[in-house]
Amino acid sequence: MQHLLKMSDVTELEIYNILKSAKELQSTTIPFNTQGFIANLFFEPSTRTKLSFEVAEKKLGYETIDFTLESSSVQKGESLYDTVRTIESLGASAVVIRHPEDNYFEALKTNIQIPIINGGDGKGEHPTQCLLDLYTIYEEFGTFTGLKVVIAGDIRHSRVARSNALTLQRLGANVAFSGPSEWQDNNLQFPYVSMGEAVSTCDVLMLLRIQNERHDAELGGSDYLTQYGLTVEREKKMKEKSIIMHPAPVNRGVEIADELVECSRSRIFQQMKNGVFIRMAVIHMLLHKGGVSNETTTKKRSLI
Amino acid sequence: MQHLLKMSDVTELEIYNILKSAKELQSTTIPFNTQGFIANLFFEPSTRTKLSFEVAEKKLGYETIDFTLESSSVQKGESLYDTVRTIESLGASAVVIRHPEDNYFEALKTNIQIPIINGGDGKGEHPTQCLLDLYTIYEEFGTFTGLKVVIAGDIRHSRVARSNALTLQRLGANVAFSGPSEWQDNNLQFPYVSMGEAVSTCDVLMLLRIQNERHDAELGGSDYLTQYGLTVEREKKMKEKSIIMHPAPVNRGVEIADELVECSRSRIFQQMKNGVFIRMAVIHMLLHKGGVSNETTTKKRSLI
Amino acid sequence: MQHLLKMSDVTELEIYNILKSAKELQSTTIPFNTQGFIANLFFEPSTRTKLSFEVAEKKLGYETIDFTLESSSVQKGESLYDTVRTIESLGASAVVIRHPEDNYFEALKTNIQIPIINGGDGKGEHPTQCLLDLYTIYEEFGTFTGLKVVIAGDIRHSRVARSNALTLQRLGANVAFSGPSEWQDNNLQFPYVSMGEAVSTCDVLMLLRIQNERHDAELGGSDYLTQYGLTVEREKKMKEKSIIMHPAPVNRGVEIADELVECSRSRIFQQMKNGVFIRMAVIHMLLHKGGVSNETTTKKRSLI
Repeated sequence: MQHLLKMSDVTELEIYNILKSAKELQSTTIPFNTQGFIANLFFEPSTRTKLSFEVAEKKLGYETIDFTLESSSVQKGESLYDTVRTIESLGASAVVIRHPEDNYFEALKTNIQIPIINGGDGKGEHPTQCLLDLYTIYEEFGTFTGLKVVIAGDIRHSRVARSNALTLQRLGANVAFSGPSEWQDNNLQFPYVSMGEAVSTCDVLMLLRIQNERHDAELGGSDYLTQYGLTVEREKKMKEKSIIMHPAPVNRGVEIADELVECSRSRIFQQMKNGVFIRMAVIHMLLHKGGVSNETTTKKRSLI
Repeated sequence: MQHLLKMSDVTELEIYNILKSAKELQSTTIPFNTQGFIANLFFEPSTRTKLSFEVAEKKLGYETIDFTLESSSVQKGESLYDTVRTIESLGASAVVIRHPEDNYFEALKTNIQIPIINGGDGKGEHPTQCLLDLYTIYEEFGTFTGLKVVIAGDIRHSRVARSNALTLQRLGANVAFSGPSEWQDNNLQFPYVSMGEAVSTCDVLMLLRIQNERHDAELGGSDYLTQYGLTVEREKKMKEKSIIMHPAPVNRGVEIADELVECSRSRIFQQMKNGVFIRMAVIHMLLHKGGVSNETTTKKRSLI
Repeated sequence: MQHLLKMSDVTELEIYNILKSAKELQSTTIPFNTQGFIANLFFEPSTRTKLSFEVAEKKLGYETIDFTLESSSVQKGESLYDTVRTIESLGASAVVIRHPEDNYFEALKTNIQIPIINGGDGKGEHPTQCLLDLYTIYEEFGTFTGLKVVIAGDIRHSRVARSNALTLQRLGANVAFSGPSEWQDNNLQFPYVSMGEAVSTCDVLMLLRIQNERHDAELGGSDYLTQYGLTVEREKKMKEKSIIMHPAPVNRGVEIADELVECSRSRIFQQMKNGVFIRMAVIHMLLHKGGVSNETTTKKRSLI
């Protein structure tokens, strides 16, 4: 594996290796100072993904280079390819990119030699989010086989829904969708269930964010909650050991009732915690197990 | 002490301990690499406070996470609480916050377990500025008892005036205010003096910044200087050992004559220097003397 | 040498020492952690210069302080001098500045004690770009004496053209200009040649960026390429060992045909790579060979 771009490129063996590595990294003290650095290129707003990558990189002993759109040569019309080639020339060990364009990485992956980690492409994929969701589920249940997972919300515009659904199915879970019919995605062959059915049958309820910034007309908050969201009443019907997930940021009172965000079956903040370890595992795998990087030309590091 | 939010929460003993610790940290070489990081959340423009915290954190061996409003999920409408919970979940050891809302920390302090350091709340407080002012005075005079301190300028809109006046009084200083009557604060019971009287009697003259960005109508620069500011003529009437302070940024030629900004009795740039050591002392106290932090779950560090 | 402001201040001996130091730093492992930090103040957009400085500073073991215009006190009207004095007071070892005003450093260089490194001043100079260009040429040819260098493009508005032309001439190269007559600079006494003549005679072809953001009327892209740029046909007429340089970002299809940007005689991405080592050498020289810095008051470091 040279880059992490789409979940469909990642084999089952690689997935389990990443989950195992994340678990190990959670309790390992890492010797500092790689003399390397990783560049984070975020062309779209993000708090948690960007910070999570930064923390993961620093914990692995990398310096980080923070690329912000506002103060950059992209304002001078430079192409993404030239920007990334520049960063590679400056000596970066790897590059993390979030970009509003679907499949932005197609223009990069042939010529760029350092690992590219996709931090989200348009309405495409968000593979490290998928992996941290898998990790959260695996930590809870120890398996994916036979688990009933319902993904609820704006399926069509979500870059989480598609990769999570297909990957969970590949790993043996039973996946269904829930949500307004106008947000269904006819290209994905999964059954749709009502939220009422979802709560009483699922092991994992994955709520998606209503992405107001992507929709012209807002779906009224409390109307959405009543019809499609997780109300206090619905939560009471969930199975004893089932859990609630959400990629965040949460619209409190829209996808989920305010008072449920930190309830005992919520794993929302645990997901963020897990995200750091998953990103550490991904970087570790790409840079130390066969990935090509600027570092191979300098001294080899022993990590862990 | 779990957080640093308001000076009125800080006991006299704690104040003197912080001043002592700052003095010690000024001449100590600190072993690097805590494997921890501190997040700086600045929702208002700031050069010196933000940079000062960053330098202090790095000198203590922390990585820093730089949160900028422009590229964040706050644009997606996320609440401050959820943002801070996210940062805590990512593993931050502490969080520094500047926010335009008075008492923003009331919504945070119950549930957030890591130390919150207030870097300025609306027209409320700015406790590390107060502490660095105290440190600067204490370095100069070795005591607060009986010192005559005049705080001059826009008392009502200043987050420095209130905490400094009340804390200095608590520590035994005689505090008076000076400035235009429309900027007086009737909730604070301190005498008002003219600038003419101020310069001839005070040991410490603390000038405040005219915050044009908070006022609709600007007070004309040279008019203000002549009536209420520190002119070259007035400075000549100051007592031999008295000093000039200003939290900066200075409006040269408004609060103070341009040529006095770096005169021999000015401590303006010394205050900035002291700010780094005070912030180191505050972080050190919160994280290593009874404060709860993410670090307690990993290995314990010996600092100094 | 206390600051690096203009190439005309740098002696030939100092230039060769910087080139030699950059070469050495390219293959040296540097012990980490200076406990110092360097501040980067960029008042104009920049990707490569800012990132290049950051990487250089981190490789030398400095923390970096990233100053962005958007979130700073400069919005409150603070002067550049006061901002830099603040940064000095905070304890910075050195400061790198890019600023839209020509000779901005004249107001700074007397009172500021720490080294100032000019990262570009208005239409003035960009000395580290000049030094990295010199390094790239010297690595290729081992000498400057007798080399034929053509600098092509918008001579008048370029901060690269002037310093490169004068410095290369001083080092023994034969310099000519090429480009539209309306962009000629009558203050510089160098011959002008057509691009046809340039390609067949030069050892080094330095293309300049068409700075659309500085011109009101754009010169049409493909028209410019045909008349003044490096087309595929023209490249074929270049001498066997001659090289192509460009300070980047490149306007593909304007100054140079798209397919030539990474051709075998292009040193464009090599220049960026070299930029890191040159900047390391400059910082190293200013901070460890006679430069005054905040560090001299603490312990002395042995670098390399």
